[in-house]
Amino acid sequence: MSEQKVLKVAVAGATGYAGGEILRLLLGHPAYLAGELEIGALTGASNAGASVAELMPHLPELADRVIEPTTVEVLAGHDVVFLGLPHGHSAKIGATLPPEVTVIDCAADFRLRSADAWQHYYGSEHAGSWPYGLPELPGHREQIAAATRIAVPGCFPTGATLVAWPAVASGLVAPDLTIVSVTGVSGAGKKASVAMLGAETMGSLKAYSAGGTHRHTPEIQQNLQEVAQSPVGISFTPVLAPLPRGILTTVVAPLTRGVDAATARAAYEAAYAGEAFVTLLPAGQQPQTQHVVGSNMCHVQVEVDEAAKKLVVTSAIDNLTKGTGGGAVQCMNLALGLEETAGLSRAGVAP
Amino acid sequence: MSEQKVLKVAVAGATGYAGGEILRLLLGHPAYLAGELEIGALTGASNAGASVAELMPHLPELADRVIEPTTVEVLAGHDVVFLGLPHGHSAKIGATLPPEVTVIDCAADFRLRSADAWQHYYGSEHAGSWPYGLPELPGHREQIAAATRIAVPGCFPTGATLVAWPAVASGLVAPDLTIVSVTGVSGAGKKASVAMLGAETMGSLKAYSAGGTHRHTPEIQQNLQEVAQSPVGISFTPVLAPLPRGILTTVVAPLTRGVDAATARAAYEAAYAGEAFVTLLPAGQQPQTQHVVGSNMCHVQVEVDEAAKKLVVTSAIDNLTKGTGGGAVQCMNLALGLEETAGLSRAGVAP
Amino acid sequence: MSEQKVLKVAVAGATGYAGGEILRLLLGHPAYLAGELEIGALTGASNAGASVAELMPHLPELADRVIEPTTVEVLAGHDVVFLGLPHGHSAKIGATLPPEVTVIDCAADFRLRSADAWQHYYGSEHAGSWPYGLPELPGHREQIAAATRIAVPGCFPTGATLVAWPAVASGLVAPDLTIVSVTGVSGAGKKASVAMLGAETMGSLKAYSAGGTHRHTPEIQQNLQEVAQSPVGISFTPVLAPLPRGILTTVVAPLTRGVDAATARAAYEAAYAGEAFVTLLPAGQQPQTQHVVGSNMCHVQVEVDEAAKKLVVTSAIDNLTKGTGGGAVQCMNLALGLEETAGLSRAGVAP
Amino acid sequence: MSEQKVLKVAVAGATGYAGGEILRLLLGHPAYLAGELEIGALTGASNAGASVAELMPHLPELADRVIEPTTVEVLAGHDVVFLGLPHGHSAKIGATLPPEVTVIDCAADFRLRSADAWQHYYGSEHAGSWPYGLPELPGHREQIAAATRIAVPGCFPTGATLVAWPAVASGLVAPDLTIVSVTGVSGAGKKASVAMLGAETMGSLKAYSAGGTHRHTPEIQQNLQEVAQSPVGISFTPVLAPLPRGILTTVVAPLTRGVDAATARAAYEAAYAGEAFVTLLPAGQQPQTQHVVGSNMCHVQVEVDEAAKKLVVTSAIDNLTKGTGGGAVQCMNLALGLEETAGLSRAGVAP
Repeated sequence: MSEQKVLKVAVAGATGYAGGEILRLLLGHPAYLAGELEIGALTGASNAGASVAELMPHLPELADRVIEPTTVEVLAGHDVVFLGLPHGHSAKIGATLPPEVTVIDCAADFRLRSADAWQHYYGSEHAGSWPYGLPELPGHREQIAAATRIAVPGCFPTGATLVAWPAVASGLVAPDLTIVSVTGVSGAGKKASVAMLGAETMGSLKAYSAGGTHRHTPEIQQNLQEVAQSPVGISFTPVLAPLPRGILTTVVAPLTRGVDAATARAAYEAAYAGEAFVTLLPAGQQPQTQHVVGSNMCHVQVEVDEAAKKLVVTSAIDNLTKGTGGGAVQCMNLALGLEETAGLSRAGVAP
Repeated sequence: MSEQKVLKVAVAGATGYAGGEILRLLLGHPAYLAGELEIGALTGASNAGASVAELMPHLPELADRVIEPTTVEVLAGHDVVFLGLPHGHSAKIGATLPPEVTVIDCAADFRLRSADAWQHYYGSEHAGSWPYGLPELPGHREQIAAATRIAVPGCFPTGATLVAWPAVASGLVAPDLTIVSVTGVSGAGKKASVAMLGAETMGSLKAYSAGGTHRHTPEIQQNLQEVAQSPVGISFTPVLAPLPRGILTTVVAPLTRGVDAATARAAYEAAYAGEAFVTLLPAGQQPQTQHVVGSNMCHVQVEVDEAAKKLVVTSAIDNLTKGTGGGAVQCMNLALGLEETAGLSRAGVAP
Repeated sequence: MSEQKVLKVAVAGATGYAGGEILRLLLGHPAYLAGELEIGALTGASNAGASVAELMPHLPELADRVIEPTTVEVLAGHDVVFLGLPHGHSAKIGATLPPEVTVIDCAADFRLRSADAWQHYYGSEHAGSWPYGLPELPGHREQIAAATRIAVPGCFPTGATLVAWPAVASGLVAPDLTIVSVTGVSGAGKKASVAMLGAETMGSLKAYSAGGTHRHTPEIQQNLQEVAQSPVGISFTPVLAPLPRGILTTVVAPLTRGVDAATARAAYEAAYAGEAFVTLLPAGQQPQTQHVVGSNMCHVQVEVDEAAKKLVVTSAIDNLTKGTGGGAVQCMNLALGLEETAGLSRAGVAP
Repeated sequence: MSEQKVLKVAVAGATGYAGGEILRLLLGHPAYLAGELEIGALTGASNAGASVAELMPHLPELADRVIEPTTVEVLAGHDVVFLGLPHGHSAKIGATLPPEVTVIDCAADFRLRSADAWQHYYGSEHAGSWPYGLPELPGHREQIAAATRIAVPGCFPTGATLVAWPAVASGLVAPDLTIVSVTGVSGAGKKASVAMLGAETMGSLKAYSAGGTHRHTPEIQQNLQEVAQSPVGISFTPVLAPLPRGILTTVVAPLTRGVDAATARAAYEAAYAGEAFVTLLPAGQQPQTQHVVGSNMCHVQVEVDEAAKKLVVTSAIDNLTKGTGGGAVQCMNLALGLEETAGLSRAGVAP
């Protein structure tokens, strides 16, 4: 094994929640433990110059590391670069990295294929699109494995797409989905604001971006239209809840005539067959975010509401693991030809 | 004032969360403070014999009171009897109380007018129906004022009906509503269970009763069909979130052609005009449960999702105040000819 | 009642948590409900020009009010001025208000009598001291009643002093107290910071200001030395916990020889006799902050640890009510000759 | 590797929180991943017959396993048996297991060496004592490595001992310690009770077992007296806080004359040198439980309160990981001659 090349991995935007989660996972990754993967540059913006000990005390193994500025020079010489930057920054940095480097972007910049949708929701120029990093979406695993540029899905799109695509793909429902996703507060990122203070968010629930204005809406729509090969209407409403991590998504759509509980369940079983990180729960058991905390799992349940003639499917993910950092590491594994599940837990930190 | 009759009020099932909330509100009620309302018998089942000091330390003013068994004899001689009993018990006790006593039931027993719906969702014999205690639903204030038997709405139906009826009544939407309500844990009541332990519920979100099986579904439907005077389809999914009190409800329905944001807002403004306890928030501001904790308020917002062609309305209530105990006291006020708002706060205990 | 002067009350720094709590309480105050107390100017700094609807949606009754700048002109013409400003500002504004106006300061500026202690802990010039607004501390009720300038105690000193003074005054313990207070996050105030984000504080406990550096230390010491009439050593450590409101204080001190559980309990019963807002719980029952949320109560328990030869006393308060806004309103009541308990609840918003 | 013996591990009481945590850790253990460790029998009491899918959905890898009754027969044939049973049961089961089997007990049965202390705090007959499983306590690592019977420390004793022993051993303080530990709710275990409901514990802090009555008191004392080789007074008060996992411990003790901050810090640095799972934080940074969630770490800080003449040391652990299941796996590693840190994370699941 002496000839084994050691992979050098940088994390740009390492001090945010996405960056921190990627680092947490890399520290337990078998390639890292075997000395085959090295954690290289960790970069930040205003935090440059501070130590990991100060900024991320939950990572004692990296305590002495110092955050560097996010520059081309600092990021040079790595085999893999994770980008955990605010949207808008990835496009700029991404353009400067050599084509042979595997770049895995956790921001939105390269997720949307439609320049119009980007312009409408983000109000800036579209930077283009990269292979979309959701291996469980049909056809994507192969694209990711062949890519050196990967756009990691948003947290809401991960939970919503994983639970909705089988229904859309199998024609269980009419293409008119109502989605309500309840999320923990880490989804808002690690930046100071009054609205996201503990005192404002604990013991409280809040709707936000109601009325279809959330930027993850076109991403969910893009995914489902891709599997449907036809237009899919999406109404998406997020709700903020008082927990650090977790997204619980409920998707409701008009049941196709003739679909019953057994048909629906069978379609979901088929869709998830062989997937390590998506589990259809036993009948009667509902997803609970606690069961997936820190893990890369998506727990799913499917119900038929006969009276309302609706399919009701629900999913639970950890927004920072499967919804961001875990998804990113899964993409890295695929892109580098490692075991897809390496370094990713299926067991949740419950209770 | 010497001739003033002192109203004597009993609370059956006083040691549950509904009973405790009614007592909290009565202790601050102006009639109580003026000596015109007296808190009489407090009853319980397994708790009989214990003191309020032991069971409800948050009510020091009643510390020395002893919980009595829930019997006809104990409840005799009161002008008002609140029932905070598990469903099934109210019907039995209610039948034993003299007709001139004002009986206000917080359980489900007398909410549904359809014996079939009762039988389907509760699996027992229908006890009949009483005037439905939601004063803000058109026509109900008058019925409550004239009643001596009142069925207080369920917590989910309160939040969902208050926010949905104007849309249905004004024809803003097609009669096909998808409702997702996120609730705090006190809605499950004060009985020991593993699933409702702090360790199982903190830091976690859970769907439950997905697929239209929740017992509050037919109650919401009954309310909306009443204002629509025609069938209304309801898909209702509750989600459990880690906070003690609060319900955040999102209702999504297909927008009627030609309805825009201004039309929708105008319909809601008209619907809530003159209502003390329902507020349409300024445009752009979303309901947050923290703002209504301990208060009898329902905060509402209305949004139009042009792309999805959906109306999206949201509401926040405290499930124990407006959703149970506050609604019950509001009904008492109306039934006794007191000021409707007496003893009920519009200000929430935030943060 | 036509001759009754209407009291006009201003709140400077109305948009912080202290200001918001004072307003919540005033809106339920019997003098306000009777039209004998009027809520006048509400001031802020960066928030001036914004409406209460935007800033404090939990106070719908004041929704249309606009926040004004904190100036002498705006505060002129009021009978009572509450100051909910950051420390340092109260001294300046306080000096500009006419002597006949009742000024009730929720900041630290005028709490400490020792200029040295002020200089040591706050690093600025001492503004002097005002009568200390803790009516339950022997001798203080009378001073408050006679004052037009009142310094409301800090939240930690309120919980610690109320539970510790009887032990010190009765000589139950040696004057060497170890105090650990666990607090909810609203104590940190309503200003943006990463450390106080929901994501950083939920699901987490944190020690802070350990080693005697917290600014409330000299205030607790001042109170206890006053009742002891001799030096009292204080080691004070706060711990931050994930709840919006509440302080649970544990005080441990060496038991005086010969003191047993009965003696200790008797001393506490005597100390709190006649106090509306301090309750010694039944033996065996421990204080719980949930039971005092939104109320002006302090729940106390006293235990003797025979093996360790220590007295262990515990208290629970709501840091924003008894610990700030409720304490402030209690002082106002006393200073204006109103009923001391007016507008202040003894019942907590539990669960 | 064909000759490699596969270790067979049973978990008795697998469905409680201790058992679940042990299983979560074993599933990520390198020996398990390499096929050198096999998870054998999982037992329970009332849960026997149910599947892991139903009882512990956070462990999808074991979903199909069925819980068996806790009997001698079921536990036979394993190399390692973890006991996650209620105290009192371990003694009985432990006596039935062959001496060559490595038995690691998470209950209290074999922790105390003093039969008197056991009798006083547990009120039953003393079963004896086993090597005490805290490797970081001087002398214990070697005992554990040589043992086939190990008593895993209690959660409070783990956090308190790790942070207090260097002060006691180095003579930084007089032997008179005041300890206040704030704990998350999972410490109470997975059994139904009203007091531990989410609605009773969220948004609330509660003292309990105040006055030295907590059963972990003699265990802490035993540990500290062992390093002191002389009597040590302990006053211990636990406080319950609204989070699932985590213990934040504050220890205050009279400073030995002449000890300053530098001396104290040096003693702690020396004490923890070479320890993988105990970290002295940089000066000025306080332990926070979020940073150790799911990890086997103990974060420590040491402060000198000059004014009060006290040493104030604080620690954070995850009560289920380092405080129970992680400590147990660490002991297994030592006892079996595996890498001590195998399968145990140093990175916390933050935020």
